[in-house]
Amino acid sequence: MEDIESKWTEIEKKVARSAFEQAYKREIEALMQQVQQKISTLVELDDIWRLHDFLSARRYEVEGKYDYQYPVLLFVFAGLIKDGWLHLTELDGLDKDKLSKVAALSRM
Amino acid sequence: MEDIESKWTEIEKKVARSAFEQAYKREIEALMQQVQQKISTLVELDDIWRLHDFLSARRYEVEGKYDYQYPVLLFVFAGLIKDGWLHLTELDGLDKDKLSKVAALSRM
Repeated sequence: MEDIESKWTEIEKKVARSAFEQAYKREIEALMQQVQQKISTLVELDDIWRLHDFLSARRYEVEGKYDYQYPVLLFVFAGLIKDGWLHLTELDGLDKDKLSKVAALSRM
Repeated sequence: MEDIESKWTEIEKKVARSAFEQAYKREIEALMQQVQQKISTLVELDDIWRLHDFLSARRYEVEGKYDYQYPVLLFVFAGLIKDGWLHLTELDGLDKDKLSKVAALSRM
């Protein structure tokens, strides 16, 4: 099972890219909805600063999380599954050792 | 004209506080309008991050600027006049040396 993080076939790369983009799309859509909801309740300056705090935290989280680099991709997928942005079945097509590792990591 | 920044009569303090709050109110109202305008054009993630950048800059500026401390207040007032949030006439009641200094600084 060594070095499975680094070796990706062309098919695996397609599956991975598609799953990654799907999760990103879902999370961003959810974020847009959250922002729209917060915006609808803006009344005073403190609300704006609270929106700013929220955006700071989410930006840091989103930009850090969506790191498409093969050596760390199984960890990224495990996190996305854990957070509900991806289903393990959407990774069908990956090598079974990779799938096992993602599944195990996502339960940690 | 020495130490005019530190010595404030009770009447001057009232005038200063009122002018300060008035300028703050104006600037915050303008900021709220700008935010509402930006919000109305939010479509994609980059728009949200641009809003975040805008809020970061404005927060830093506003929180730094509204520093109500007598030794620096004349500089604060000069800046507020320069930026259009306050009129010199709204400081009527301050000692004439203070007014001259604010007027001179605001033209720098």
